[in-house]
Amino acid sequence: MTASGEERFIAEFLEPLASGFPGAFDLRDDCAEIRPLPGHSLIFKTDPIVEGVHFFKEDAPEDLAWKALAVNVSDLAAKAARPVAYLMALTLPSRPAKDWITRFASGLQAAQEAFGCVLIGGDTDQRDGPLSIAITVIGELPSGRMVQRSGAVPGDLIYVSGELGGAALGLRLRLDSTFACDQITLLHRNSALARYLRPAPSLGLRAALAAYARSAMDISDGLVKDLDRMCRLTGFGAEIELASVPTAAGIEQILQANETEAARLVTSGDDYEVLATVPPLNAVAFEQLARSGGGRVTNVGRVVAQPGVILNGQSGPLTLGTSGYDHFDKISSG
Amino acid sequence: MTASGEERFIAEFLEPLASGFPGAFDLRDDCAEIRPLPGHSLIFKTDPIVEGVHFFKEDAPEDLAWKALAVNVSDLAAKAARPVAYLMALTLPSRPAKDWITRFASGLQAAQEAFGCVLIGGDTDQRDGPLSIAITVIGELPSGRMVQRSGAVPGDLIYVSGELGGAALGLRLRLDSTFACDQITLLHRNSALARYLRPAPSLGLRAALAAYARSAMDISDGLVKDLDRMCRLTGFGAEIELASVPTAAGIEQILQANETEAARLVTSGDDYEVLATVPPLNAVAFEQLARSGGGRVTNVGRVVAQPGVILNGQSGPLTLGTSGYDHFDKISSG
Repeated sequence: MTASGEERFIAEFLEPLASGFPGAFDLRDDCAEIRPLPGHSLIFKTDPIVEGVHFFKEDAPEDLAWKALAVNVSDLAAKAARPVAYLMALTLPSRPAKDWITRFASGLQAAQEAFGCVLIGGDTDQRDGPLSIAITVIGELPSGRMVQRSGAVPGDLIYVSGELGGAALGLRLRLDSTFACDQITLLHRNSALARYLRPAPSLGLRAALAAYARSAMDISDGLVKDLDRMCRLTGFGAEIELASVPTAAGIEQILQANETEAARLVTSGDDYEVLATVPPLNAVAFEQLARSGGGRVTNVGRVVAQPGVILNGQSGPLTLGTSGYDHFDKISSG
Repeated sequence: MTASGEERFIAEFLEPLASGFPGAFDLRDDCAEIRPLPGHSLIFKTDPIVEGVHFFKEDAPEDLAWKALAVNVSDLAAKAARPVAYLMALTLPSRPAKDWITRFASGLQAAQEAFGCVLIGGDTDQRDGPLSIAITVIGELPSGRMVQRSGAVPGDLIYVSGELGGAALGLRLRLDSTFACDQITLLHRNSALARYLRPAPSLGLRAALAAYARSAMDISDGLVKDLDRMCRLTGFGAEIELASVPTAAGIEQILQANETEAARLVTSGDDYEVLATVPPLNAVAFEQLARSGGGRVTNVGRVVAQPGVILNGQSGPLTLGTSGYDHFDKISSG
């Protein structure tokens, strides 16, 4: 009997992604093993991406691979955990071309080098239906030191990492290539498209978050929506200033033409930046430690006692309607 | 802003499955945390099940839930790991009826109580395509003591747990309800159908495997195929006796009528029993410790120097053609 198709696929394309990690057993065992450092815990997240929901059929395989890992690593980044390893369940609609697999594996390689983790296990299946990539990522941190989503209290300053709105602008341009063509340049356009395809988790904030954040989460479904989730855990609310939100290339130009449009973009999903609340007394130290880790953080508002999230524009609170992405809206309507 | 559909779904149906496990944070955080016992490692496996590949569209939601967890726990059982927790990425083709979700959650509850683990995180999405349940299971064991798939040497006795062939008979009956109707009773039939729907990982073997097995894996794709995989890791082979294989209800009756048919059934997939090799000197102790843990193990053959797996029938080696299941046959043909 010879090696099966699945075994050869794993040996040729996936095994190199597991090299150098003893507990991955070169992907030749049934399970993988991770022994955390003494006094440390392992931290887990699973967030699949599916064709037609999280990416387009025509997206490059390198980009899909990157995004599949990045959206999971993003959660670890917000929890102040160090990425260690991941498992991947890959479900393909048809026999993939060798070129596709090669490019997909190279995208994974690039992502795992950027994020500092390795493939330790997984599964491949073939069935009719959209391509699906389900990654479970594993991080490590000192036990009991995970930065929680809950815990924000009134007076906390609200910070976001990086810049917002780029991924939403990229998605908008994918759906309508003439969008905002009077305001943005080709450079803005390309930057936004790249941002949609390749989110970059803010791993440089680990020390700053661990030391000074009262609460944190990643922004995957949009600034207002995710901030509202964070606030609802404690019963408080938040007030943020659109003018303070750090914006991706092109958003500033759109803002000058149409404030509501710009607000929609910076509160849409897919940015995969970190949202954190920090006690005012720690603010300076938090910003300094973030910078020294190579991260950028911006204070965009504060936690308030009154429930609900208010986004202030130039002339007062903005109303954006349903903002951000819900994975499961159809159930909510029932 | 109110809770989204996904959040209400999680709160109502999934959160109860996470209760009592502090690191699950009631499924309200972005990540889950597990702190292993000192000197222990965590062990990982992901194995999704997909409608049309691993189960039928009309299967009961309780059974799908059970199977989705059982096929993953089965790998932990073979590695001598204790199940601790799992994450679940659930991808649904449409808005599920409340009755469906309730029954699905009750199946998960039954399975996690049987296997001793809890839900600690996951994700739900909706998209066109077949229902998919991707579970990543996490087990614990003393560091460096995972029973490996590799390591078998000539002379080792080959053991299997439980009984084989039941799941394959159940699947066969699902596809052709008149199959073997001259040989098997209604009781055999119902037993086989149940076995296909609800695999029962051999968790009672943990102590015996940890103490005495030289190598082990679970039988998911069929006895001959999985034994061949195990042997190819070391370059050796195996010889097994069909007459020694412990068979599920009804298989003995089929065997008397048609040896090849019976051999096909006991070497097909979906049994989720444990396959282990044990040095002869440890055989008695292994069997005793397995029994005291409530497990049943049967010696079905031995590891030999000559590569390849030989299955002996009454009149010599049987030839079954391609035996067992390949998740990815279409790639192998390329």
